[in-house]
Amino acid sequence: MGSIERKKSPELQAYPMKGGDGDSSYTNNSSYQKSLSEVAMSLINEAITEKLEVENFTSEHPLCIADLGCSVGPNTFIVVKNIINSVKLKYHTLTIPTPEFQVFFNDHASNDFNTLFKTLQTEKQYYAAGVPGSFYDRLFPCSSVHVIHSSFAIHWLSKVPDEVMEKGSPTYNKGRVHYVGSDEEVVKAYQRQYVKDMDGFLKARAEEVVRGGLVVVLVPGRPNEVPHSECIGNVLFEVLGSCLLNMAKEGKIEDGKVDSLNIPIYYASPQEVEEIVDRNGYFTIERIEGLPHIAEPETKHAAKRLTMGIRVGVEAVLKGYLEDEIIDGLFDSYCKRLEQVPSLFSSGGAAILFCVLRRNEK
Amino acid sequence: MGSIERKKSPELQAYPMKGGDGDSSYTNNSSYQKSLSEVAMSLINEAITEKLEVENFTSEHPLCIADLGCSVGPNTFIVVKNIINSVKLKYHTLTIPTPEFQVFFNDHASNDFNTLFKTLQTEKQYYAAGVPGSFYDRLFPCSSVHVIHSSFAIHWLSKVPDEVMEKGSPTYNKGRVHYVGSDEEVVKAYQRQYVKDMDGFLKARAEEVVRGGLVVVLVPGRPNEVPHSECIGNVLFEVLGSCLLNMAKEGKIEDGKVDSLNIPIYYASPQEVEEIVDRNGYFTIERIEGLPHIAEPETKHAAKRLTMGIRVGVEAVLKGYLEDEIIDGLFDSYCKRLEQVPSLFSSGGAAILFCVLRRNEK
Repeated sequence: MGSIERKKSPELQAYPMKGGDGDSSYTNNSSYQKSLSEVAMSLINEAITEKLEVENFTSEHPLCIADLGCSVGPNTFIVVKNIINSVKLKYHTLTIPTPEFQVFFNDHASNDFNTLFKTLQTEKQYYAAGVPGSFYDRLFPCSSVHVIHSSFAIHWLSKVPDEVMEKGSPTYNKGRVHYVGSDEEVVKAYQRQYVKDMDGFLKARAEEVVRGGLVVVLVPGRPNEVPHSECIGNVLFEVLGSCLLNMAKEGKIEDGKVDSLNIPIYYASPQEVEEIVDRNGYFTIERIEGLPHIAEPETKHAAKRLTMGIRVGVEAVLKGYLEDEIIDGLFDSYCKRLEQVPSLFSSGGAAILFCVLRRNEK
Repeated sequence: MGSIERKKSPELQAYPMKGGDGDSSYTNNSSYQKSLSEVAMSLINEAITEKLEVENFTSEHPLCIADLGCSVGPNTFIVVKNIINSVKLKYHTLTIPTPEFQVFFNDHASNDFNTLFKTLQTEKQYYAAGVPGSFYDRLFPCSSVHVIHSSFAIHWLSKVPDEVMEKGSPTYNKGRVHYVGSDEEVVKAYQRQYVKDMDGFLKARAEEVVRGGLVVVLVPGRPNEVPHSECIGNVLFEVLGSCLLNMAKEGKIEDGKVDSLNIPIYYASPQEVEEIVDRNGYFTIERIEGLPHIAEPETKHAAKRLTMGIRVGVEAVLKGYLEDEIIDGLFDSYCKRLEQVPSLFSSGGAAILFCVLRRNEK
């Protein structure tokens, strides 16, 4: 039990997606994630068909599926349903009796599990459970989960790297909310945090996944060879930072707010992921590829939707620093900026990484 | 998967304890339950020591514990911790390596799981999961739980018996909110619902509990031979009903409100429980007994505390019928009534049933 009794980092930061079902909730602003998940589904189905070793699973136990960073639905329900159908088909094809399914919905303890639970379908084909906690730590008992899925979650670091908040240090991220345009030392600090977090993620999953089980990850990143400065996600945060700086110049927010605010997100390349997984050693990469970036058309409507999408993601981070009306003002000017320079969100410097990991023999 | 795909009763009613941590929350008004749980703990420890067949459990799987009707803590955390310590001691005594623990906290989907998850200790010795749903249906996969515990929960029926709401029928519960003082037909309707619910509870648990596992139940009831009319729980609801009738007479609430309001609680005797378990056939009663009723001293303070305790329990039921200020007024007059007639809550016609069930061979 050593691994779960170890002290959790007190600095671990949780920024759940916005709960409830209001206009700016995750539930009503996750269509981009949904369409990408649909693209990913055929790849997940392939991975399950080809790589999930159901013939090695103990038949008298339920088949357990976990969705890490599930937020509040409905995407998590759609993905889970598809995974189950795919697993069932595999059992059917192999003429092995289908087991019962148990699904663990995981997110930070501050996630809106009440909404998640209330929107669970009663006619579902699995037993549902919610699991609160960071996926950079252990969440499940040893060898107890067969398929682990995570969509649009592990680009969130476990915390803002300490170094970027150290005033006077070369890693201090002055005047920016993310690492693009910052000194190389800041980028490296973000990178180090990412590597550390991914190591924690892989180590925890390696203990939890049964032999022959799979970890399937869908995460925004950047193509190999595309520099951080041209990755759309980074560009969008750079715009957010410049909007905040303008508000500081106009006296709407205090000087220093921009210095102390850092968004704990890192966009990795497939090559970086491969290096970490290989070095970590617990998993074999069965497949890794970038899904096509579905560029938003350059319209006012698209700018609004994108603004809302970014807001849903980072609002929880901003709330610790800014008052609600300031956040409203920030996203108003952010949206106007995107409308003025629509090329910002239609260029191609982005990749959604799809990655299938198989647990190596224990 | 037939059993979990079956249609859930659409009439299933959920009345979770009041969430959050305000003055009238369950968290701050469950000291009575807590002291009784402490009395029960020594009995639970005995049951685990003598009856839990850990030597028959598969060692490579976690030991799973479920608390049904857990509400929001802290009692559920205290009980779970004690169960784990007791199980660990048993493994230690038998010199079998201790497994990992996974704990499932169950309550209705409308329970405040957000508060439950936020108050989970980080330094706990188990993996935690929340399971939304009625314990009168299946909640877990087959043969997947080793110890099931439920405190102060299964006296709640799955719903108000249909018959007591049928106007014109001999079972119509006119002018009362519970079954004491009602026609014998009303009492029988409550009894039938209780038997049906307990059958559902036992059938579901029989499928979920592993061979050699235990179900431990702590539930308010009444001693054998004590008629319903003298059971404290019933008396307290009778007082509540008469306070409501007074408010109706004073024109503060509509006529008919009292007729349509029924509290779905049944206080069973040990004999009734024994008959149901025996007829059901899945379990053997290893122990059943009434714990001593800890009578409140006859003070103003005790009347207030008791009022708050009752309010926490039934507020969710009342909210469907009465406005908030009416509920406040109701409990003001309820408290005054208890202060005037303190003997109402210090008599001995109550029993907390403690019951240990062992799964028969499958």
